[in-house]
Amino acid sequence: MKQIYLDNQSNTMTDDRVFEAMVPYMKQNYGNPQSIYSLGQISKDAIEQARVSVAKLINSNPEEIIFTSCGSESNNLAIKGYAYGNSKKGKHIIVSAIEHFSVLNAVKSLEKDGFEVSYIPVDNKGFILLDELKKAIRKDTILVSIQYANTEVGTIQNIDEISKTVKEKNIVFHVDAVVAAGVIPIDVKKSNIDMLTFSGSVIYGPKGTAALYVKKGIYLKPQIDGGVQEFNKRAGTENVPAIVGFGVACDIALNEMQQNYDKTIKLRNRLIDGLQKNIKYIYLNGPTENRLSTNVNFSIEFVEGESLFLLLDAKGIMAASGSACANKSLKISHVLTALNVDVAVGQGSIVFTLSKYNTEEEIDYVVKEFPAIVERLRMMSPLYDHFKTTGERMEAGPGTDYDHHGNVQCTM
Amino acid sequence: MKQIYLDNQSNTMTDDRVFEAMVPYMKQNYGNPQSIYSLGQISKDAIEQARVSVAKLINSNPEEIIFTSCGSESNNLAIKGYAYGNSKKGKHIIVSAIEHFSVLNAVKSLEKDGFEVSYIPVDNKGFILLDELKKAIRKDTILVSIQYANTEVGTIQNIDEISKTVKEKNIVFHVDAVVAAGVIPIDVKKSNIDMLTFSGSVIYGPKGTAALYVKKGIYLKPQIDGGVQEFNKRAGTENVPAIVGFGVACDIALNEMQQNYDKTIKLRNRLIDGLQKNIKYIYLNGPTENRLSTNVNFSIEFVEGESLFLLLDAKGIMAASGSACANKSLKISHVLTALNVDVAVGQGSIVFTLSKYNTEEEIDYVVKEFPAIVERLRMMSPLYDHFKTTGERMEAGPGTDYDHHGNVQCTM
Repeated sequence: MKQIYLDNQSNTMTDDRVFEAMVPYMKQNYGNPQSIYSLGQISKDAIEQARVSVAKLINSNPEEIIFTSCGSESNNLAIKGYAYGNSKKGKHIIVSAIEHFSVLNAVKSLEKDGFEVSYIPVDNKGFILLDELKKAIRKDTILVSIQYANTEVGTIQNIDEISKTVKEKNIVFHVDAVVAAGVIPIDVKKSNIDMLTFSGSVIYGPKGTAALYVKKGIYLKPQIDGGVQEFNKRAGTENVPAIVGFGVACDIALNEMQQNYDKTIKLRNRLIDGLQKNIKYIYLNGPTENRLSTNVNFSIEFVEGESLFLLLDAKGIMAASGSACANKSLKISHVLTALNVDVAVGQGSIVFTLSKYNTEEEIDYVVKEFPAIVERLRMMSPLYDHFKTTGERMEAGPGTDYDHHGNVQCTM
Repeated sequence: MKQIYLDNQSNTMTDDRVFEAMVPYMKQNYGNPQSIYSLGQISKDAIEQARVSVAKLINSNPEEIIFTSCGSESNNLAIKGYAYGNSKKGKHIIVSAIEHFSVLNAVKSLEKDGFEVSYIPVDNKGFILLDELKKAIRKDTILVSIQYANTEVGTIQNIDEISKTVKEKNIVFHVDAVVAAGVIPIDVKKSNIDMLTFSGSVIYGPKGTAALYVKKGIYLKPQIDGGVQEFNKRAGTENVPAIVGFGVACDIALNEMQQNYDKTIKLRNRLIDGLQKNIKYIYLNGPTENRLSTNVNFSIEFVEGESLFLLLDAKGIMAASGSACANKSLKISHVLTALNVDVAVGQGSIVFTLSKYNTEEEIDYVVKEFPAIVERLRMMSPLYDHFKTTGERMEAGPGTDYDHHGNVQCTM
């Protein structure tokens, strides 16, 4: 059967060049980089070379890069590390409503510890409402954390404008760039960003490594205390092969950014156009401009996301569902909720994220198979039956649980 | 040139069987384990299979295993996670004086947050003074953290006896078993251990993965908030290949524990006997009984550890220095200090840690090369010169900086 992988914001296939670069550090070059004998120094040199490559991707200095184990760790270190390390300056933090869970749950944890958090709303395409941000800033605001681009709907924020707003108040600005770094150009100096999270596992690098850029002079309380690794900001024996792979992945991402962009945006538009042409009652979530070249997010009315997802999988098409199961009730994601997507419509959301490895043939296969899947699901839908019979929609307000209205049960 | 790697408590060479098991998860099986499509489920199944293997090594239940990125992360999660999550029960913590820095610096960080910490001394072989532990326990003691075996001197604690003391007071008991797990049998049920840290990177597994066993019912405040991975105790996309490799490493460690023990203890004793026979004024640190089969730690009088280390490296012998450079003064390690090793003598400490890959030939090479290196360094030593001339030692008390007495400068 065909295997068409379209969940590349969740994880990418590792580039062969990355894998090949890692192998020597998994086999013969296993020395601990903290040891000064030759085998340790080989590891040390490899890490420092990777640090240069990783820094270059975002135009930081190498000594401002801290290697961590994943994007979630970087986000937690940035947010909690800064909050706990600088709480004397104030206890107010600002994030957007559409951040990744590793940001949202980190600030929720801080709220339990006496910090106050403001959640900035977005417009219906996912762009931060700058006026709301301006209004939210207080004298005791110590940190603003806004993502560069959104994981689910691909909205690329106007980071320079947001940064200007934050920095003119002298507040520390953290950016979660996990799905943006390596896909679009990022320049932390030009954009005046203080901390930035990015990861290897979504740019054809290995799992198990990410980075946090921390501008010189910013103090973070470490989350992992111990040895002197990573400039005393993150203890623990370095994951040398993964760091080496991350470095190579950053080199490749920088060198091939334009060609990957050109390729994926063509595929993205082909997929959007193809689906919109062949399926009725289908709505693109997120913007058409300033959208990641790799992101497609559709709400498909009268179908349920999980079922859609499973039938796609049966055809070898791997995507992500835009709805999430929580507390045995079906809800739409917090991102779609923030974009004011109708809950009933949002149930049938599906996210395709493209990689440089996808082909036109794959996209055409999806465009060909998708309508029949949707049709099959709609045949089973009481909502669609009602709509066909009466011409009326059974609407649900944003944020309302679907199982208050229908009889669809959560299957996860 | 020969390359003889004798720093295996710092990091081991990855077993080929581990590497081969990881490759499919680095290349074709790259799905995110949180995704329910087939490629995600392959990753999910691989993680759960690894969890069974990892649990089996210490006789825990699989659902009590949390995968982390390194031993330091596990120790920090155990100690800070328990402390912050249970501070209402009390704010007193007990550790030993010879813990790893990831334990000592974690509790130092807690001290700044209002926790009180007692440091239990050890005898001159590195065994916890049980009476001191008993005396240190208070009504508000919430956690005791003691290592299973010591990284530097190989002392294997009587964990069952310590556990009995701790558990009869109903205090949560954490054990750092990074250098013990996979080398000696561990049974968390039999030993009544509540939390246990162990790592893949020192048992011929991959870098970038470790585990924390957490007995059912114990609440930890997560350090990394975000998604639902690892039973909500540790968010972040799972490092699937490393976890798979860790599982295989645990299988191998369990199956081959006896043969590895038999091999390494023979090599260890050959090295100890050989060096003691060929070098004067040389002292074994740590015990002769209840010592890891992989650990050799010698203090060699009238030489300086860093220089010893460098000359050994020049001969292709990679070991660890028992002294550490801090604040531009030479000090002996906190472990040797706790064992009451004389500072002047302790300067010349060297730690050899063996692996299943070492050979008799390698040990014989070290025994042959080592005396000449020691002799060469002693020729340069004003202390040795003084001793030879007068028969008197220039002594320094424990904990005193060496550069108050000699003229050796720190080179790190």
